[in-house]
Amino acid sequence: MKKFMDDDFILGSETAKHLYFDYARDLPIIDYHCHISPKEIYEDRRFDSLGDLWFGGRQKDGSCFGDHYKWRLMRSNGMDEDTVTGREDELKRFKGFADTLSMAAGNPMYHWCHLELKKYFGINEPLNADNAEDIWNKCNDMLKNSDDLTVRGIIRSSNVAYVGTTDDPTDTLIWHEKIAADKSVDFLVRPSFRPDRAINIHKPGFREYMESLAGAAGKESLKNTQDVIDALINRVEYFASHGCVASDHGLDYVPFRKTSMEECDKVFEKAMNGEPVSAGEAEGYQTALLTALGRAYSRYGIAMELHYSCLRNVNAKMYRKEGPDTGYDMIANSSCGENIAMLLSELDGTDELPKTILFSLNPADYDQIGTILGCFQSPEVPGKIQHGPAWWFNDSRSGMELQMRSLANLSLLGNFIGMLTDSRSFLSYTRHDYFRRIMCNMIGEWVENGEYPYDEKALKRIVTGISYYNAKRYFGI
Amino acid sequence: MKKFMDDDFILGSETAKHLYFDYARDLPIIDYHCHISPKEIYEDRRFDSLGDLWFGGRQKDGSCFGDHYKWRLMRSNGMDEDTVTGREDELKRFKGFADTLSMAAGNPMYHWCHLELKKYFGINEPLNADNAEDIWNKCNDMLKNSDDLTVRGIIRSSNVAYVGTTDDPTDTLIWHEKIAADKSVDFLVRPSFRPDRAINIHKPGFREYMESLAGAAGKESLKNTQDVIDALINRVEYFASHGCVASDHGLDYVPFRKTSMEECDKVFEKAMNGEPVSAGEAEGYQTALLTALGRAYSRYGIAMELHYSCLRNVNAKMYRKEGPDTGYDMIANSSCGENIAMLLSELDGTDELPKTILFSLNPADYDQIGTILGCFQSPEVPGKIQHGPAWWFNDSRSGMELQMRSLANLSLLGNFIGMLTDSRSFLSYTRHDYFRRIMCNMIGEWVENGEYPYDEKALKRIVTGISYYNAKRYFGI
Amino acid sequence: MKKFMDDDFILGSETAKHLYFDYARDLPIIDYHCHISPKEIYEDRRFDSLGDLWFGGRQKDGSCFGDHYKWRLMRSNGMDEDTVTGREDELKRFKGFADTLSMAAGNPMYHWCHLELKKYFGINEPLNADNAEDIWNKCNDMLKNSDDLTVRGIIRSSNVAYVGTTDDPTDTLIWHEKIAADKSVDFLVRPSFRPDRAINIHKPGFREYMESLAGAAGKESLKNTQDVIDALINRVEYFASHGCVASDHGLDYVPFRKTSMEECDKVFEKAMNGEPVSAGEAEGYQTALLTALGRAYSRYGIAMELHYSCLRNVNAKMYRKEGPDTGYDMIANSSCGENIAMLLSELDGTDELPKTILFSLNPADYDQIGTILGCFQSPEVPGKIQHGPAWWFNDSRSGMELQMRSLANLSLLGNFIGMLTDSRSFLSYTRHDYFRRIMCNMIGEWVENGEYPYDEKALKRIVTGISYYNAKRYFGI
Repeated sequence: MKKFMDDDFILGSETAKHLYFDYARDLPIIDYHCHISPKEIYEDRRFDSLGDLWFGGRQKDGSCFGDHYKWRLMRSNGMDEDTVTGREDELKRFKGFADTLSMAAGNPMYHWCHLELKKYFGINEPLNADNAEDIWNKCNDMLKNSDDLTVRGIIRSSNVAYVGTTDDPTDTLIWHEKIAADKSVDFLVRPSFRPDRAINIHKPGFREYMESLAGAAGKESLKNTQDVIDALINRVEYFASHGCVASDHGLDYVPFRKTSMEECDKVFEKAMNGEPVSAGEAEGYQTALLTALGRAYSRYGIAMELHYSCLRNVNAKMYRKEGPDTGYDMIANSSCGENIAMLLSELDGTDELPKTILFSLNPADYDQIGTILGCFQSPEVPGKIQHGPAWWFNDSRSGMELQMRSLANLSLLGNFIGMLTDSRSFLSYTRHDYFRRIMCNMIGEWVENGEYPYDEKALKRIVTGISYYNAKRYFGI
Repeated sequence: MKKFMDDDFILGSETAKHLYFDYARDLPIIDYHCHISPKEIYEDRRFDSLGDLWFGGRQKDGSCFGDHYKWRLMRSNGMDEDTVTGREDELKRFKGFADTLSMAAGNPMYHWCHLELKKYFGINEPLNADNAEDIWNKCNDMLKNSDDLTVRGIIRSSNVAYVGTTDDPTDTLIWHEKIAADKSVDFLVRPSFRPDRAINIHKPGFREYMESLAGAAGKESLKNTQDVIDALINRVEYFASHGCVASDHGLDYVPFRKTSMEECDKVFEKAMNGEPVSAGEAEGYQTALLTALGRAYSRYGIAMELHYSCLRNVNAKMYRKEGPDTGYDMIANSSCGENIAMLLSELDGTDELPKTILFSLNPADYDQIGTILGCFQSPEVPGKIQHGPAWWFNDSRSGMELQMRSLANLSLLGNFIGMLTDSRSFLSYTRHDYFRRIMCNMIGEWVENGEYPYDEKALKRIVTGISYYNAKRYFGI
Repeated sequence: MKKFMDDDFILGSETAKHLYFDYARDLPIIDYHCHISPKEIYEDRRFDSLGDLWFGGRQKDGSCFGDHYKWRLMRSNGMDEDTVTGREDELKRFKGFADTLSMAAGNPMYHWCHLELKKYFGINEPLNADNAEDIWNKCNDMLKNSDDLTVRGIIRSSNVAYVGTTDDPTDTLIWHEKIAADKSVDFLVRPSFRPDRAINIHKPGFREYMESLAGAAGKESLKNTQDVIDALINRVEYFASHGCVASDHGLDYVPFRKTSMEECDKVFEKAMNGEPVSAGEAEGYQTALLTALGRAYSRYGIAMELHYSCLRNVNAKMYRKEGPDTGYDMIANSSCGENIAMLLSELDGTDELPKTILFSLNPADYDQIGTILGCFQSPEVPGKIQHGPAWWFNDSRSGMELQMRSLANLSLLGNFIGMLTDSRSFLSYTRHDYFRRIMCNMIGEWVENGEYPYDEKALKRIVTGISYYNAKRYFGI
């Protein structure tokens, strides 16, 4: 029996260990997609408690912010909402979580949490209801005192070379500017352009958002689709001038329906008049925006991330109570593979296809993605069209293996740009370690089975590439 | 090489063996969903032959009843229908099945049959064409003489604590009453409420069924949708008073479309006039029924099972010849995950969401289900919304592993209510043993690999919970 | 560590080795579906270089023909199109491919290429950029001089008993006639009937094709749907008289919508007038053709292959530049399982269902296919309705294992007709070897784990059946 999560965790063979320890482990991290706050990086926030860091919860202003992965797990164990997202008795919550976690055999959070406890707090014993209070106290002491446990301390001690935050086009990027001007920050922090609110013409808040966007682009108002496009491209330029190398789109499904600007404008007017716009009606407008943005990304060398097959806020009661990103989202069936191909074909037709990274929340889409990639590659950069790593609900050992095996079967694993955290928590960098172990184990297994030769040069190129160099080359950082 | 199906069958590690032998094996069975006959339990039926028990077939009245899993396998080996469902030469059929079975490497039926032969008849050799006649004779002798091989004998010797039958709302539950009154029955037998025929307004027989339902509810006739709902709820109450703890819905896909009662009634009238109703037209009426029933289930603490992604009777010729449930069903593509979420959200919106168990016949839906669960949990009971075990065509080693890995990744495996047989045969209790071995092997593997700690207390809680205690708590029995 | 691709490649246990070496390895190959040229077989073509044999590329007439699997891989490594499909510097291309291949860990092409180098050229070292030139020269020398490396030499040395080519209904089958008349050809070469161009009424070239078809069937013109059907059946008869035992349909999805001949004719006229026909409009006409052809196949004992869930030529720019079959195809979401069942039910309703082989390009459809099979079997031949082997993008170790495990779970693995190459290259026969190793390893693993008994007789029947005898029986050759 292997010891629980020892140094060889996940590494099932000598070759796997060699690849991990000698090539993968010590390379810097390029975390090209996450949801952490540049303000907190600049201010080098210190956390009050492990509860603050691990759970977050209901804020003083009534809003709810934190790690909804953990909230879902606690709810699945029958914990009441006041404890899950409330902050009255943080130790009670922590104990409840500890008890929940011990029931979570096979859940990636079991590994994430223990990797974090081990790396950042030196705790090697499994967390459970019995030792929860001791661990709570020990961690909180360290959080108060250790310089490695402020935001910058965590990033530095995690060997992070690059942080790509996720930012609204209307963002002033003031915190990014401050970070860039601060010589003591010895890692890169760059904004990513995420214009979902301008795309989501069929969702609440669109009208209000158009005002903000107009303001950000220095216009009085946006009167039609072309105005929206112009404003967005204005902001793409602004983001590019702040070192942005990636954009991001969170879509229920990828739409593609070419219509005239007149038709787009009709729908736009409808939305601006406060009339409801259906998802179907929205598609023409959305296609116009996605196409125009794709071209702009191509011009500025910005990669286009497309995240899809996701349904958000499906529990209406809890959405009213807690708002978005509180753990009420699910995998969708999307069947939009053909739309993706049409969008990429449209952009490629005029040689304006940007680097593109495809992420589906539904693993049943993986093989389809693997076959889309090969239809749109070009010499711009090896692996120009990428299948993004197993994301969100799929960010587990079996999920990552599924994604990498699919990618390996259908494309070139050696050009994979690898892991990101997609995280709202600063401790999540251990997921890169988790990923590297899984990747090295998988490749090591092929070598041990005689399915790939023990070719030191090739193995080093593949493993270091996926861990670090491919993303560096891909994003030009 | 491991011996074929020995005591350690499926158990690939010492930890797996420990978990199975010391925790899982000897716990009682809660078979919360099956299709066996309460009449046969009450009458303590004795079987004429292994053919009777294993195959069934064409009855004297021309109808076809029996184990269509086995019929499909024989047909796949080119056996003619007269032999497959006919009963003229039962030994010929058994020999043909034995020969077929030896070609069925990798099929769960290979294991089911041999587990049954081993447990109930003490036969340890693989069944094949050569030894079929000997085995046939030996089993038939035992069936004639052994007290452990009547219906009650089988249930008792299988350590079954609870049997949940599947019953039409119009059922008088007379056999359940007789069983309840019979002190010699030392296991629980309870009805489950399955109102498919009232939901299936677009399928043949609806009008006739409305008459029966009216009669059962003590009404002269049902004049509109509300009448149907009232009649059904009247029967839910009747079932509840007979100890019913679960309902079941067999749906091609889960519909959700809210309409006015007026529109529902228009479709109802159409159906009652004998006019064809399309699946699309049926959705409003069905949504009204499902919503009203969900609320009633919530009131009575009855769990709501939703089975979907299934197409039935797809071979029209054979359906005309043999009727339903004769082996002509297939997995559907349904894409109804969003509907499920809307139905649960509707019910949860007024705090009337019952305990719910989701089963899809299409394994491509598993991960989606895993993400729906987490959106609707509550403190009512840990794991209130469940992903049901791998069902029907997926009830295989790899199917069960897929379902459990998906569940473990996306929710809390420790709260899983575990296996059921869904069976039409009394020997199927060995499937619980098969399931427990697979579950213990999977968890044992995690421990052996250092992915979960060897924590005796936690492992015992998880394994005994999934085997028995979670279902006991969930159904309150 | 196992040596890279040694004699025991893929064979992970003693039982696996026994099954492979003693039963599977030396059986002849029935390659019942491929895309190689009967002309080249008759003329016993000799290849100029390994580039010619492995890549093909842009022909002198501007068209593009060759192994688009390899082209996609090179494009994914950032190679420019002139090198990928151009033929100016074949050594440069080969070196680029060699370098690409070493990045392709986990890709089946890694295995295919090395199996081919080993079997046909005696090369055992892994191909990479460093040794590419030496290997290039060695292979080219052998291609010039060895009698085992002409087309017939390759087929003979590969122990191929049967080659099923893919042919248009308008084909004169002249090369098949010449081959049949040539006593020196000691393997069977038979045409397969592929009427896609007559089915694709909604795609370009339909009108022109109708003229060719009319000519081939000895008619002046085709005036309506019935004329098309008559012409096709005339050609089915012609193909049958040339020993055809299989037909093939390449469909985006399988349509099924019964309409009147009048409606079919309206769409036919539209197409013949050059007006665009949508995919939806085409379905009635297509259903009429598929139904009529199915009946004809049944009459002549011809198996019907249905390939679906495929989207072709999705990169519009490259399609304009390079034409079809150049590596710009993808997996589709089709959801047409119900249509397939309706088509088979329609044909079975009059006892005119031919032997049928179902292939989906989307592995998410596999389990559905497995359940369709069992609904339409008959005593005509064991395993009359087949799930075809993992095809095209799925033709990998994990893809084949997925298909076989699904088939084993849901039907009778022992009646599987096994592998085909679907190849455009004469060296692809090693894929049969690859398949047999994977199949023997999988079955061997079940035996080693005690999941299937070590029953010599049964194992031999299953392994030799899947390798050879089942296909021989199925196609009656």
